[in-house]
Amino acid sequence: MLGGGLVDPAAPLIRGDDLGVLRGDGCFETMLTVGASIVALEPHLARLARSAAALGIPMEADRWRELAHQVASAWAGRGEGALRLVLTRGTEGSPAGVVAGAEPTGYATVCPVPGVALRQREEGVTVITLDRGLPVTPQPWLLAGVKTLSYAVNMAALRHARDRGVDDAIFTDASGRILEGPTSTVVWVVGDTLYTVPVTAPILAGITVTELFDHAGELGLATCWRHATRDDLLAADGVWLVSSVRRVAAVRAIDGAAVPVSPLTETIGKALLSQR
Amino acid sequence: MLGGGLVDPAAPLIRGDDLGVLRGDGCFETMLTVGASIVALEPHLARLARSAAALGIPMEADRWRELAHQVASAWAGRGEGALRLVLTRGTEGSPAGVVAGAEPTGYATVCPVPGVALRQREEGVTVITLDRGLPVTPQPWLLAGVKTLSYAVNMAALRHARDRGVDDAIFTDASGRILEGPTSTVVWVVGDTLYTVPVTAPILAGITVTELFDHAGELGLATCWRHATRDDLLAADGVWLVSSVRRVAAVRAIDGAAVPVSPLTETIGKALLSQR
Repeated sequence: MLGGGLVDPAAPLIRGDDLGVLRGDGCFETMLTVGASIVALEPHLARLARSAAALGIPMEADRWRELAHQVASAWAGRGEGALRLVLTRGTEGSPAGVVAGAEPTGYATVCPVPGVALRQREEGVTVITLDRGLPVTPQPWLLAGVKTLSYAVNMAALRHARDRGVDDAIFTDASGRILEGPTSTVVWVVGDTLYTVPVTAPILAGITVTELFDHAGELGLATCWRHATRDDLLAADGVWLVSSVRRVAAVRAIDGAAVPVSPLTETIGKALLSQR
Repeated sequence: MLGGGLVDPAAPLIRGDDLGVLRGDGCFETMLTVGASIVALEPHLARLARSAAALGIPMEADRWRELAHQVASAWAGRGEGALRLVLTRGTEGSPAGVVAGAEPTGYATVCPVPGVALRQREEGVTVITLDRGLPVTPQPWLLAGVKTLSYAVNMAALRHARDRGVDDAIFTDASGRILEGPTSTVVWVVGDTLYTVPVTAPILAGITVTELFDHAGELGLATCWRHATRDDLLAADGVWLVSSVRRVAAVRAIDGAAVPVSPLTETIGKALLSQR
């Protein structure tokens, strides 16, 4: 708990009238821990600050950095961990950002990397494309690109995919352009160029894809931000879903059509691991 | 707490890894209590059950009815109350509806009706129209019409409205048709006919509007479900935002254009009150 030390995860932590649960009104970040170190902590803190600003919730990065290190240190020695930072507007009676001086709720959790994520790093994933139902240029109150706690649609999309017998989903916009996965960024390769969707689209600014693009030159790869359709992905030499904890999962099929698994998959996975 | 008796609202109730807060993954209902009685409890329980079914979360209506009465009885004598029922998928380790046998999280809260709601019942509201960013026919994973805990966009729309100096908002779809308010249903009157938006649109099935339409005949009013644009509302003899706790708030202006306050406002307000 922000300012409250370590607590047993099985103990109740949040009030029943916290706007995080009543309204999904808050934001979060998830990142990978290896030993006591946290992968890309600073970019995650910066994105949390941007989300908090978009929601009008106060956030002090220094206190969050300290909390993240405290939790990661306590976890060190138990293998890779999935560390979450959660910031809500606070309780309904005194919502931070609405009532001056009121306190937001802040806490961090850590747990083992889910087995399914470890498996998908190795085996890749099958996906379906799903219409995200967003206009091409959404208005600010739609919070596109803000990592809010209101993830019910993302979770429903994942359940829908699994009900259809596939592992994951890729969202498209009203014009059929590729957006992002419910919990990942889409990356593809054609020849020696890595591509991803520009963040002018209504998507989250992915942190792992930025790590990857920052190091692409060392792998002899060029990088490009470009809009794409499903046909573009099907014609690529390889497609991946990239995210903070699962890292790199090769896409093996889209809407039932096979996609080649690029031999770069291992190279890219190792490059991201070595940056830890 | 479902099955756990009454607890102090200031005491922590929810685990930090509850999917209700981590993912806004759950559903809720808000209703009005007067004395120990709960306005329209059965329709609210039925809608909670529909939301839970859409999310794949198990829900036993009998236990929720008992919990609601327990909380309302404890509140009786303190004036009108706003009673909330909250159902989440449970903790991340054992998500109900994903892991067989896992337990969802369920609880109820009650608090005084907010002063702003009481004032808006009397004075009415000014509103702006905002694009909800939904396609005309959204796919099921977009959860339109499901009362999920993922209300960040609804809350952002209300903040946006207040930043623009007005009280509330009315969402429109991609074709400019009227949908609903962030926490209310839109009703308008032309002559002696009450209108609202058909629930074939991507909106919540409003419970208070159903109460109102069920009793319209007694007031000498006909009822009609019809799509409308902002121009239709501006040409109406009166427009209201209708919801469970605030009940009936007359719309006095839309996007800066004055709307007549219908003399039916008091009649409708009283009719809804008398059904308690």
